[in-house]
Amino acid sequence: MQDYEHKAQYYETDQMGIIHHSNYIRWMEEARMDFLTKIGFPMEEIEKAGIVCPVINVSCEYRKSCRLNEHICIHLEIQHYNGIKLVVGYRMYEKDSGELRATGISSHCFLSTDGKILSLKKVYPGLHEAMNKAIEGLGES
Amino acid sequence: MQDYEHKAQYYETDQMGIIHHSNYIRWMEEARMDFLTKIGFPMEEIEKAGIVCPVINVSCEYRKSCRLNEHICIHLEIQHYNGIKLVVGYRMYEKDSGELRATGISSHCFLSTDGKILSLKKVYPGLHEAMNKAIEGLGES
Amino acid sequence: MQDYEHKAQYYETDQMGIIHHSNYIRWMEEARMDFLTKIGFPMEEIEKAGIVCPVINVSCEYRKSCRLNEHICIHLEIQHYNGIKLVVGYRMYEKDSGELRATGISSHCFLSTDGKILSLKKVYPGLHEAMNKAIEGLGES
Amino acid sequence: MQDYEHKAQYYETDQMGIIHHSNYIRWMEEARMDFLTKIGFPMEEIEKAGIVCPVINVSCEYRKSCRLNEHICIHLEIQHYNGIKLVVGYRMYEKDSGELRATGISSHCFLSTDGKILSLKKVYPGLHEAMNKAIEGLGES
Repeated sequence: MQDYEHKAQYYETDQMGIIHHSNYIRWMEEARMDFLTKIGFPMEEIEKAGIVCPVINVSCEYRKSCRLNEHICIHLEIQHYNGIKLVVGYRMYEKDSGELRATGISSHCFLSTDGKILSLKKVYPGLHEAMNKAIEGLGES
Repeated sequence: MQDYEHKAQYYETDQMGIIHHSNYIRWMEEARMDFLTKIGFPMEEIEKAGIVCPVINVSCEYRKSCRLNEHICIHLEIQHYNGIKLVVGYRMYEKDSGELRATGISSHCFLSTDGKILSLKKVYPGLHEAMNKAIEGLGES
Repeated sequence: MQDYEHKAQYYETDQMGIIHHSNYIRWMEEARMDFLTKIGFPMEEIEKAGIVCPVINVSCEYRKSCRLNEHICIHLEIQHYNGIKLVVGYRMYEKDSGELRATGISSHCFLSTDGKILSLKKVYPGLHEAMNKAIEGLGES
Repeated sequence: MQDYEHKAQYYETDQMGIIHHSNYIRWMEEARMDFLTKIGFPMEEIEKAGIVCPVINVSCEYRKSCRLNEHICIHLEIQHYNGIKLVVGYRMYEKDSGELRATGISSHCFLSTDGKILSLKKVYPGLHEAMNKAIEGLGES
């Protein structure tokens, strides 16, 4: 699976002259949404099926600043998935140099729209299978 | 009605060292939400009643830059309201000096959640009355 | 010149289930930055030359909501440019259907870092020429 | 020191109908800036002295969703400070109920504008003292 790419925008800069740190959390989400689209289950389909996927926790370690107009690639890795909980890891690097800029982790669960914890295996086996297949595929690459 | 106040945040700055222009559009919304809360109809109540209030158009004229930690006051004025369409004007000024920083206008309609245009007078007379009362009150101040 | 493309992101949605209106203002900036890069003068080069390009005013008219994961194309047009003032128009449409979603306008001037109004023709003739050339080119397409 | 307060805004919501998780990272910054202002060294003063304070890492654990117009209080705690590195902890709770919504941690260093690591004790003793004094004061409360 090709790494997701984001071009750093002017409105993402701050008065230090670098990309504001909160945007990396958003880029991690962009990569996650891209992953779901690529495995055939874009988030709008998941939500149409009555399932939401909130963030339980998130962390980001900043190694080197990103700057305006840089192309930042995000390599995504499923660190844990058991149908109930999902942990995703991210490596963000500058496209041309390959230089690492940040790493991140986010954890998620799956909920019904009225807030009950769901097992994807039971309520959405198609997505569950696609996830497991993607994990194998990502592992091989 | 007291003018709404927003403290300019670090994450709102950009690499010009000023507040990014897109945030003023968000501050206008903050002032609008504050207005609705003050007249007794916070947006969450309006939405619970099955009514959404999207933006039809928005404009902002920037006079002087806002900077980190400045207290920006927003004076809101209902320029037009007929139960179907709402036009709001905004004057944003620095609190201590009173110096004008920007002016803005936003237009809105009222829709059912399935996208039909609504007349507030018919579907939500309480809010309609509160709006008219507030317009009188604002006019007097 | 190819129209700029932005994929609508989850963090850009709001609780109406659509893209929040403030993001269109940011997308207009994305298209503007892309234009400058394409004509050979990315914003970081302009700023290295000691020139900033703030927004004087901005407006946006919303025709139809954008939703998560839609590919929004932005057609940019230089409506006015005389070396001192720049007016840019934007047409935002959904990529697959071509359906118009919003139109916008932004006006800009060019300032030295200490806030003096500049004539690009005098202080940055290379960019001035590239702008004029691009305007001709955009006109032809 | 009084806990910082933020009112959750419409533009901070997402299509799950809750506040988007990336905003909590921004609220942590709001509380940090408020803390610096309260101890007499607002960030604009620190930056005027040629010192920037980037984020090294950040994490947030989400316990319960925040919603539109809720008043979220942020209790800030200096977990570690030695003049070179700063670690800040945050407890975010709903004002009326006191209910915990999220906890967070951010780590920071102090850099010269050309990127060299600084010891605040050496380069900015006034801020260093104010920090130590505040840590004592926060510990007592």
